[in-house]
Amino acid sequence: MSTYTSIKLIARPEPGPISPDLFEITQQEVPQAGSNEILVKQTHMSLDPAMRGWMSPDPESYIPPVALGEVMRSAGLGEVIESNNADFKVGDRVMGMMGWTEYYLGSGEGLRQVQASLDAEMALSIFALPGLTATQGLYGFSEPKAGETIVVSGAAGSVGSLVGQLAKADGLTVIGVAGSEEKCNWLTNDLGFDGAINYKTDDLEARLTQLAPKGIDMYFENTGGPIQQHVINHMNAHGRIVVCGMISDYAAAEPSAGPNWIPIIKKRLTIRGFAMPDHFGDVPALIAKLTPYVMAGKIKHRAHIIDGLESSIDGLNLLFTGGNKGKLIVKL
Amino acid sequence: MSTYTSIKLIARPEPGPISPDLFEITQQEVPQAGSNEILVKQTHMSLDPAMRGWMSPDPESYIPPVALGEVMRSAGLGEVIESNNADFKVGDRVMGMMGWTEYYLGSGEGLRQVQASLDAEMALSIFALPGLTATQGLYGFSEPKAGETIVVSGAAGSVGSLVGQLAKADGLTVIGVAGSEEKCNWLTNDLGFDGAINYKTDDLEARLTQLAPKGIDMYFENTGGPIQQHVINHMNAHGRIVVCGMISDYAAAEPSAGPNWIPIIKKRLTIRGFAMPDHFGDVPALIAKLTPYVMAGKIKHRAHIIDGLESSIDGLNLLFTGGNKGKLIVKL
Repeated sequence: MSTYTSIKLIARPEPGPISPDLFEITQQEVPQAGSNEILVKQTHMSLDPAMRGWMSPDPESYIPPVALGEVMRSAGLGEVIESNNADFKVGDRVMGMMGWTEYYLGSGEGLRQVQASLDAEMALSIFALPGLTATQGLYGFSEPKAGETIVVSGAAGSVGSLVGQLAKADGLTVIGVAGSEEKCNWLTNDLGFDGAINYKTDDLEARLTQLAPKGIDMYFENTGGPIQQHVINHMNAHGRIVVCGMISDYAAAEPSAGPNWIPIIKKRLTIRGFAMPDHFGDVPALIAKLTPYVMAGKIKHRAHIIDGLESSIDGLNLLFTGGNKGKLIVKL
Repeated sequence: MSTYTSIKLIARPEPGPISPDLFEITQQEVPQAGSNEILVKQTHMSLDPAMRGWMSPDPESYIPPVALGEVMRSAGLGEVIESNNADFKVGDRVMGMMGWTEYYLGSGEGLRQVQASLDAEMALSIFALPGLTATQGLYGFSEPKAGETIVVSGAAGSVGSLVGQLAKADGLTVIGVAGSEEKCNWLTNDLGFDGAINYKTDDLEARLTQLAPKGIDMYFENTGGPIQQHVINHMNAHGRIVVCGMISDYAAAEPSAGPNWIPIIKKRLTIRGFAMPDHFGDVPALIAKLTPYVMAGKIKHRAHIIDGLESSIDGLNLLFTGGNKGKLIVKL
């Protein structure tokens, strides 16, 4: 009789790094699929910045928090090893919210089939939450136009790196903001960004002036931080700002102040916040929009792989220190 | 031979109150209308918060500043007393940007005819910039729906008082923010607002909780200031914010910090800045939208009248101290 490991959330995070005390690691027997159920052996799990929000009860958040005592929520990819559900057969590869667990048992509702030949890292780096988020955010609220200039914060992150490459493929001038020289070099040398700004060391004002001489038409915000005000100061009239993430603030005890609103009037800006759960009904259309860019070889990705379910706990903190290089994936 | 008075802008404002030293009062002979010109005797002039921006050179503003040595810019109403232009005849009442002057001489381009029976104060308080701005801001970017809750800052101001009354006529719950008990009483007793908050004396958080128990769906921003963050904390998912003015900041040496952006994501807010010059092509449609509300007696106004062209100079400061009660109009 074999056993498997799961990790449950047992306490709420405080400001600052995620503590291992928030989790309980449990062992249990591998179950059998019941009526209409499937059993999936998960092979890869995605770690995402949104997880910090899922761990914290907030009546206003767009998705209910993970209940204490529940397996921690996450997206992942795996193989069906038992099926009593006509929609799945043994050997199918599936992707979806299976949680921090080596085995998933359930109805399979919400799981998507994944083509057998699709690389697992590519599936989780592009065709899962990062790609859906990048596509919805870039195209869902306004049309990026060739010749425009876009600034992407968190540009070396899983979403930002895709946004920048999509915009570049559309003929925009793309400027990425990231937190290390290595990341900045990756953006410009490997992904084809027109420029990159190291927010930790560069003079933000001088670099924006240099890299965006015609001003900024779109800003894709993943991080927050001081870059925000500088970008707004450089926005053109009728500029569009998409607010996807504020990762620099998620672990903060006090929310940081935002930029002054006078430029919103002077430049007639539109600022639009979004979260993917509002758009899950559009997933087929988003995948259809994204796929041709991938097929045409326009979209590179890199995965930062950590090994074993238990590495998830420390792994989460990489997202908030910027320690990951590429999409953070746990290999089980 | 008769003379008339004009006031020219001769220096740029510093932070703080507007100084009389910025202006030069000039006397000149009343001219005769030349070929294709009209001569208008101005009877009423509008003073508006946007004037502070018009006095300051800012390459990014939506409208060029008034040049030094030029007559100060303003909207007003007057009577045609000479005409060599077939579009106007002597005795016509006209409204438009005639500036700080007792007489306007020009082609009449941009001036609109005003019905003889329309009260001058009503024309400038409702059917000029305030009404156009209120109508564009409330209806131009999203649809206010009966049953929703809207908060209007600067609610006793020329734009805010119209926005609140339009929203009330549409069946929304309307909460106004103003700076005195007298203004708050006017909003609730005379204009029919559902509630009013005195931002100088009330506990903003407690009052919003009390007045908007179902949360806030729309925020019409005229002022900036601490109310901003409180309103955002009370916004509902998919709330819409229209940024029309930041009057509390126009005279400040340093722009104040804005609210943190995390709620923009959590609540998927849309924030939209606008300025009327972008929408001058829509004036006929805006007037058509606004007029039925006025005809149905849904829209009250009050004018704060000051006397004589030279009163404009000190009068401007009333707008930034909140000293005016109603639409500020100079009677010539």
